[in-house]
Amino acid sequence: MSLIVQKFGGSSVKDTEHLMNVARIVTDTYKKGNDVVVVVSAQGDTTDDLIAKYKEIDSNPSERERDMLLAAGEQISISLLAMAIQSLGYPAVSLLGWQAGFSTTSSHTRARIKKVDTTRLKNEIARKNIVVVAGFQGMDKYDDLTTLGRGGSDTSAVAIAAAMGADLCQIFTDVEGVFTADPRKVPNAHKLDEISYGEMLELASLGAQVLNNRSVELAKKYNIELEVLSSLTNKPGTIVKEKTKMEKFLISGIAKDDDIVRISVTNIPDEPGLAFKLFSVLSAKGINVDIILQSIGRDKSKDISFTINKDNAETAMALLEKNFVSRYDDVKISMNDNVAKISIVGSGMESHAGVATDMFEALFDANINIHMISTSEIKISVLIRKEYADKAISVLHDKFFPAE
Amino acid sequence: MSLIVQKFGGSSVKDTEHLMNVARIVTDTYKKGNDVVVVVSAQGDTTDDLIAKYKEIDSNPSERERDMLLAAGEQISISLLAMAIQSLGYPAVSLLGWQAGFSTTSSHTRARIKKVDTTRLKNEIARKNIVVVAGFQGMDKYDDLTTLGRGGSDTSAVAIAAAMGADLCQIFTDVEGVFTADPRKVPNAHKLDEISYGEMLELASLGAQVLNNRSVELAKKYNIELEVLSSLTNKPGTIVKEKTKMEKFLISGIAKDDDIVRISVTNIPDEPGLAFKLFSVLSAKGINVDIILQSIGRDKSKDISFTINKDNAETAMALLEKNFVSRYDDVKISMNDNVAKISIVGSGMESHAGVATDMFEALFDANINIHMISTSEIKISVLIRKEYADKAISVLHDKFFPAE
Repeated sequence: MSLIVQKFGGSSVKDTEHLMNVARIVTDTYKKGNDVVVVVSAQGDTTDDLIAKYKEIDSNPSERERDMLLAAGEQISISLLAMAIQSLGYPAVSLLGWQAGFSTTSSHTRARIKKVDTTRLKNEIARKNIVVVAGFQGMDKYDDLTTLGRGGSDTSAVAIAAAMGADLCQIFTDVEGVFTADPRKVPNAHKLDEISYGEMLELASLGAQVLNNRSVELAKKYNIELEVLSSLTNKPGTIVKEKTKMEKFLISGIAKDDDIVRISVTNIPDEPGLAFKLFSVLSAKGINVDIILQSIGRDKSKDISFTINKDNAETAMALLEKNFVSRYDDVKISMNDNVAKISIVGSGMESHAGVATDMFEALFDANINIHMISTSEIKISVLIRKEYADKAISVLHDKFFPAE
Repeated sequence: MSLIVQKFGGSSVKDTEHLMNVARIVTDTYKKGNDVVVVVSAQGDTTDDLIAKYKEIDSNPSERERDMLLAAGEQISISLLAMAIQSLGYPAVSLLGWQAGFSTTSSHTRARIKKVDTTRLKNEIARKNIVVVAGFQGMDKYDDLTTLGRGGSDTSAVAIAAAMGADLCQIFTDVEGVFTADPRKVPNAHKLDEISYGEMLELASLGAQVLNNRSVELAKKYNIELEVLSSLTNKPGTIVKEKTKMEKFLISGIAKDDDIVRISVTNIPDEPGLAFKLFSVLSAKGINVDIILQSIGRDKSKDISFTINKDNAETAMALLEKNFVSRYDDVKISMNDNVAKISIVGSGMESHAGVATDMFEALFDANINIHMISTSEIKISVLIRKEYADKAISVLHDKFFPAE
């Protein structure tokens, strides 16, 4: 008998039909003799509907009240799912984040989990209940409701799996697992049986939005085996774990991120610490910088280019204009949003030279110009023009995953 | 400086426009130097929408899960109202039932308040916050959410007023106060300035659904002054209190209840205890009987007629058929739904003889036949045919509230 945590996102519980489908998956697992904790998000459009409601009142209301409002979303989905499970003849109980023991920081809308007190969870399991837990939410030390921000429900599921010592944490989504590339774009992309935490982290941060990074980091930290699988097909998904068996390919996936812009700051005087000053303007406002390229301009001045998320583009330009560019003569700033980042990820490249060479060669053969390059132990990213993105993925997929 | 509790029902907060209106009423009260606790129900159709959702899954789901689901309704309205108040520039904080200290019994869907722990309420008031509390809900000793059932938000408001020693508890509705008769039916019905708890209780139980009985009983017990008033007009409403100043009229109101049926059981053998047996069949299932009439039938047998709420009619007929009628030869049962109960209510009638005579005379003059009569110290009810109900109210209003 195992303890299994199953997490279902909003689209998996969006209406009665989908709720009943989830109830069947959960009870099938329970019937086999497993203890089951189910973590769910708010139904389909509920969160968006609630946000639309508050925007009519105030475009930027207090974060404490936003959390109070949004936490109602999972309250609705957990009670409905518990009813659906009960209607199939199985015992179930729904628990809000705080009832399930989630203590968080007080950073409303982006709280971090401090502790999961498993007392009640264990009591409900001991009573043979299927426990349905509200993802995404918790409570701070003032007894106020908090939400965990983006990908919070995945994080809730992994946190419960870690705190309860679960044998497996299944993350159900609308895709069948982790693919070597986006299957909607690359017809011969194939599903991976296994992937390492490290590879998954790189892919997640690259916009392959199968799993949220925080949840993978947490799984890695507590060595929780994850399975990413579809709630609509009854097929094994992709297992995410520490060590994977040798795959026959050097890389595990190719990903695209075109929600980025490149900002270039040119003619920066050659003084020590100026690059630090430039980036501290951004980091002070929580803006993350991705690829950075520094080059020598005319008269020994420096040019610095970097990429950031598109959402932060306007804020970053304004901040830099005010707090950096305006303080130096000659310094110029420009922005380019016609860029996409293409990355290949794989633990295999650590021990195999030549992966980068293969990548650059494939892009060169396709006449795709590379603007910037960034690498980690298990990832190589290149910045190219946006219109070449799909072609780049296609030629890289052919190169690294040749048809059998 | 006073502490004022203000309660707003679902129709008063149904959309952004109404929420902003409520926010203005609340902040106007706060601006005058008062401490304000606001109790709100779920928005407009929210509760009905949530019920429709669960009915798609199960027509009769577990009551614990129903409470979990429905309690989300007020969570949405309190956070939106707190945002609306903040958007006008005033400090506000929303509290769920359990955060506001409501401990209840574990009778899900109809829990009773055991205690209101005012620690947090008092802290928030001390911080000069306008406190927005979710009505209708609380928490039991297992840390599970509960709801108070019908009229629960009125009861929440009065319970807070009692626990906090509030100076006034205002119940905002869509009518301007308590009227001498339904103003939609009786054009010259007029609003009462004051009414006693006792009169209000009789009127509430008669279907004048301005205030829920539980809340009036609680207000009477703790001597909380209530004001019933409209959230749409800026006018004084009706004050409900222990002693009212002498009104110039003997009665304070006329009410109709036509959501009832009359059941007649005839030819009951003349044995001791049979009336008890008959009514215990109904009370065992929680069916309340209102007016009862017992008369002598043929051969010393008894006929018993009584009225019950229409919602219970089918259940009651089936129960009586199975557990009473079928056990005795000759006993017959019949039901009549062409009935209405007309009642006059007023503390004045305690000390003034002849009110009943005046009532019967007015009905006789209008050729309206009386089937059953029931009286209390401050109420006289008669059962008549449904089609005469409006006419009866009209002639009684002319009799007891003559035009000036």
